[in-house]
Amino acid sequence: MNVLIVFCHPEPRSFNGALKEVAVETLQRQGDSVEVSDLYAEGFDPVEGAAHYPERGEPDTFFPLTEQRHAFKGGTLPADVQREIARLERADLIILQFPLWWHGLPAMLKGWFDRVMVYGGLYSGSMRYDRGRLAGKRAICSVTTGSPAAAFSRHGRGGDMATLLWPIHCSLYYLGLEVLAPQVVYGVQGGGLSYQAEGEFREHLESAKASWAQRLPSLADAATIPFSGWQDWDEHGVLKAQHPLSWRP
Amino acid sequence: MNVLIVFCHPEPRSFNGALKEVAVETLQRQGDSVEVSDLYAEGFDPVEGAAHYPERGEPDTFFPLTEQRHAFKGGTLPADVQREIARLERADLIILQFPLWWHGLPAMLKGWFDRVMVYGGLYSGSMRYDRGRLAGKRAICSVTTGSPAAAFSRHGRGGDMATLLWPIHCSLYYLGLEVLAPQVVYGVQGGGLSYQAEGEFREHLESAKASWAQRLPSLADAATIPFSGWQDWDEHGVLKAQHPLSWRP
Repeated sequence: MNVLIVFCHPEPRSFNGALKEVAVETLQRQGDSVEVSDLYAEGFDPVEGAAHYPERGEPDTFFPLTEQRHAFKGGTLPADVQREIARLERADLIILQFPLWWHGLPAMLKGWFDRVMVYGGLYSGSMRYDRGRLAGKRAICSVTTGSPAAAFSRHGRGGDMATLLWPIHCSLYYLGLEVLAPQVVYGVQGGGLSYQAEGEFREHLESAKASWAQRLPSLADAATIPFSGWQDWDEHGVLKAQHPLSWRP
Repeated sequence: MNVLIVFCHPEPRSFNGALKEVAVETLQRQGDSVEVSDLYAEGFDPVEGAAHYPERGEPDTFFPLTEQRHAFKGGTLPADVQREIARLERADLIILQFPLWWHGLPAMLKGWFDRVMVYGGLYSGSMRYDRGRLAGKRAICSVTTGSPAAAFSRHGRGGDMATLLWPIHCSLYYLGLEVLAPQVVYGVQGGGLSYQAEGEFREHLESAKASWAQRLPSLADAATIPFSGWQDWDEHGVLKAQHPLSWRP
């Protein structure tokens, strides 16, 4: 199996960095080929904008999707975007390793979606969802949070974790990816902010590493999150009234 | 009323740019004072990282929240972060004007949360939710989408809009803000991608501007989205079993 780990944390010696390392080691040990997109270390630019498109399709007004399609077709996509697309194409499994910041992806990783998932190349109106370009590949979010698990439970004050991750899972499925249940480590705080003293922090880390290492070998075969697809939707892209999950009037 | 519009689009002559302009004009005409954070025009850096903290609280390992708190206390926050905080402090109403990219905020605006909402300054363990630093102020998302409304309906293939905006609304409420129902314009596509020919695009834009201009004067008094608060939660931050919305066993 070819695995791409998209690692998004500014500090290699972080909890996230350790989880990335344990994934590399565990997967390599079982014979997988592992590649890492280390977004911070590589200085990835997450800001989509005109500066990335010196050869414009539409010179007067910057429409991001127009320029993405134009650059994809003309082979003039920015080098970092081309590199990330090549990595995605080689991968059978994609692991997004990130801390939950402000109820979502850090800007660096959000911009990886904004810039790399180019219109007219990685998706289009007819190449999405279960007809997506990356169909047949798998993806998983490996996430850390500052607040403890109870806060992200169904009625927790932080918001239900499944709901917070839903937009990210939607994006992964939009590309055709099969989405695995996330790996979430709660209550991670360093730098003297913590619920945890240094010893507790170490213990938490070791336990999180062990549970991740134990789960990783199963990712190739584990059941994925079910999504509805083209056959379930009417011509407006809405669940057909006779769909078992539909309770529309 | 003092209004802050946080405008996030790379193209001033975009649909989003036009909605920002109509908000400025409408609010000024009714006597409000309006300030615009034009994130792209100002070259805001959305990437939280060590480079922003030359005087480190913890020199060996970069813990973002540790450095945010240290810089806030020491008065050494980056100039752009200080500027944004001052704008927030002046505002009674905050309008986030952005296109929905990959089921969420563009990276530029996501990073505005990551960097500006500093730990130890704009929030802390005891200064959050209905005890948040920005309590008493209001906020609203004014959003455009590429796909049409049906795709973002309750059973639409794009995902229910209320659920996609939930993490963003969580972040706003976390800061103490009262959150208004979003203003959403669906099916916005330019640059020849469109469902819409040029004439239809113009008509769509004029209609969206008119409906936004009509709603803006009501934002100061309109009902806001109800959230649970400290009095509703038990010591773990979970809805108390006797809460009317709780169906926990």
